[in-house]
Amino acid sequence: MKAIEIIQKELKLVDFPIPEPGPGEVLIKVKATAINRADLMQKNGLYPPPPGASQIMGLECSGVIEKIGSNVSLRREGEEVCALLSGGGYAEYVTCPEEQVIPVPKGLDWISSASIPEVYATCWLNLFMEANLKAGEKVVFHAGASGIGTAGIQLCSNFGCESFVTAGSQEKIDFCTNLGASGGSIRGGKIFDDIDEWSPDGVNIILDPVGGKYLEDNLKVLALEGRLVIIGLMGGAKADLNLGHLMIKRQKIIGSTIRARSIAAKGFVMKELENKVWPLFDKGHLKPIIHAVFDLEETEKAHQLIEENKNIGKVVLKVG
Amino acid sequence: MKAIEIIQKELKLVDFPIPEPGPGEVLIKVKATAINRADLMQKNGLYPPPPGASQIMGLECSGVIEKIGSNVSLRREGEEVCALLSGGGYAEYVTCPEEQVIPVPKGLDWISSASIPEVYATCWLNLFMEANLKAGEKVVFHAGASGIGTAGIQLCSNFGCESFVTAGSQEKIDFCTNLGASGGSIRGGKIFDDIDEWSPDGVNIILDPVGGKYLEDNLKVLALEGRLVIIGLMGGAKADLNLGHLMIKRQKIIGSTIRARSIAAKGFVMKELENKVWPLFDKGHLKPIIHAVFDLEETEKAHQLIEENKNIGKVVLKVG
Repeated sequence: MKAIEIIQKELKLVDFPIPEPGPGEVLIKVKATAINRADLMQKNGLYPPPPGASQIMGLECSGVIEKIGSNVSLRREGEEVCALLSGGGYAEYVTCPEEQVIPVPKGLDWISSASIPEVYATCWLNLFMEANLKAGEKVVFHAGASGIGTAGIQLCSNFGCESFVTAGSQEKIDFCTNLGASGGSIRGGKIFDDIDEWSPDGVNIILDPVGGKYLEDNLKVLALEGRLVIIGLMGGAKADLNLGHLMIKRQKIIGSTIRARSIAAKGFVMKELENKVWPLFDKGHLKPIIHAVFDLEETEKAHQLIEENKNIGKVVLKVG
Repeated sequence: MKAIEIIQKELKLVDFPIPEPGPGEVLIKVKATAINRADLMQKNGLYPPPPGASQIMGLECSGVIEKIGSNVSLRREGEEVCALLSGGGYAEYVTCPEEQVIPVPKGLDWISSASIPEVYATCWLNLFMEANLKAGEKVVFHAGASGIGTAGIQLCSNFGCESFVTAGSQEKIDFCTNLGASGGSIRGGKIFDDIDEWSPDGVNIILDPVGGKYLEDNLKVLALEGRLVIIGLMGGAKADLNLGHLMIKRQKIIGSTIRARSIAAKGFVMKELENKVWPLFDKGHLKPIIHAVFDLEETEKAHQLIEENKNIGKVVLKVG
């Protein structure tokens, strides 16, 4: 099969053997895959795949189940599915534990179906499971026009919550408010003053891919019993923390990644998506936000687009 | 009525009017009250009572309900009760929302009953509700011989968890291990190396009254998906935080206090204690740990004992 290999930080389409599904795994003939920031880090040697994962990049895909391994009970050959992968998506075939695979939402094409597993799993896990988001609460998404941001805004609207974004341009802010965000602020300006003005009593949850640079200000605009979920370190890892503020405000700082979690944990999230989120795609209440589609051999170009922060929503790779 | 007043940082027994129970409140004739570190801070002007709370110190008591206010439905006159107070316990009478009052455990005397509300509410709230402690997990208590530590050790044993303590002397460590802790380490020594040796895969929860000074080491000995609950700042509020570590380990830092929480929140904790913890006192599976008992007029002496870190468990004040 054809797949993308990282050769001295360059991306080449080369031949690989088709992988064999092990016990509890399925083999998926990939129709489309999508790009995540973790892939860019992996390309640059900064994010080695977890033990046992494919060396090939790609954390999500859509496709058809071509073959099932032994002890597979949830899935069957021929099913049209989405998958949350621990790697291997930039390829014509990929294997994956059956728990991480669910049917595609009704009426969504391969491109759309490939764009949703990672961002919706990340948002569901962090907003609803880790941070225990409840109807009526207020959420801030830094990098609001990202795949995660655009998924998060829509989840908030659908579950009775308000959201506010920070992003790199007015165009991105406008896109987010059209999508359902109550407001936004341009990075480089007084974003925390604007958050404070949007919600003078503080916000309940912040989903933050920035980290160190924002920590102190994030905690300041967080409400009593607010939750700050750190999902990235684009602004560095080191920060000064005032535990007195954290205690008096009864706040939580939650560190979170999804990739290295157990199969059972990922399976639980996917089951939640199937039951609670996929029906919202079926009804048209949620829509995939796709910035651009490239062929697999154009992966380098697709990465560059994300590297330059030009995208609103996801960048997808069409396979085969 | 007689009550303790702070007059220029000295404690005097003086006359106060008996308070009137408002709507939803009960008036308790206090039989005993107990000392908490927050009282020492309040005495020194470092911990002003929350809005609406009594200016008199004292966060817990045992006693008899003397009178009920309007709209009281859960409690009745003459009941023998324990209460979690937002202040006012160092007195012959105190008023309190009925939600924060539950019957004394069977067979416990007034002294014992006064020693348990605050430490068991704190442990239940932070271990089970905030940090979601589950059977089989491992917990570290810094200041393990304190009221909170000695309550926490016993809760761990009763709910299928192991615990490890740090404390100021071998005598305190021995007391804790006799009470059910699996091990301990003397403060000033290599406590974090000892924790690491006790649980090489990390510990699941740390209940920490120290704060800044311990933060980095606490996170190092915390397991994957571990929870650090900050309940005090005896080692300062400021700390350096490495968010990369927090993310990779998927850890949580939780700031927590109980005093300023809503009546409903405190009521929920007390209901949990009544249903899940008080029966363990009834059966003799839990025992109050009382270091010393003083008369109300000796409050100054009682405070000094705690200030000097000499106590193992609670220091109680007998009233009337």
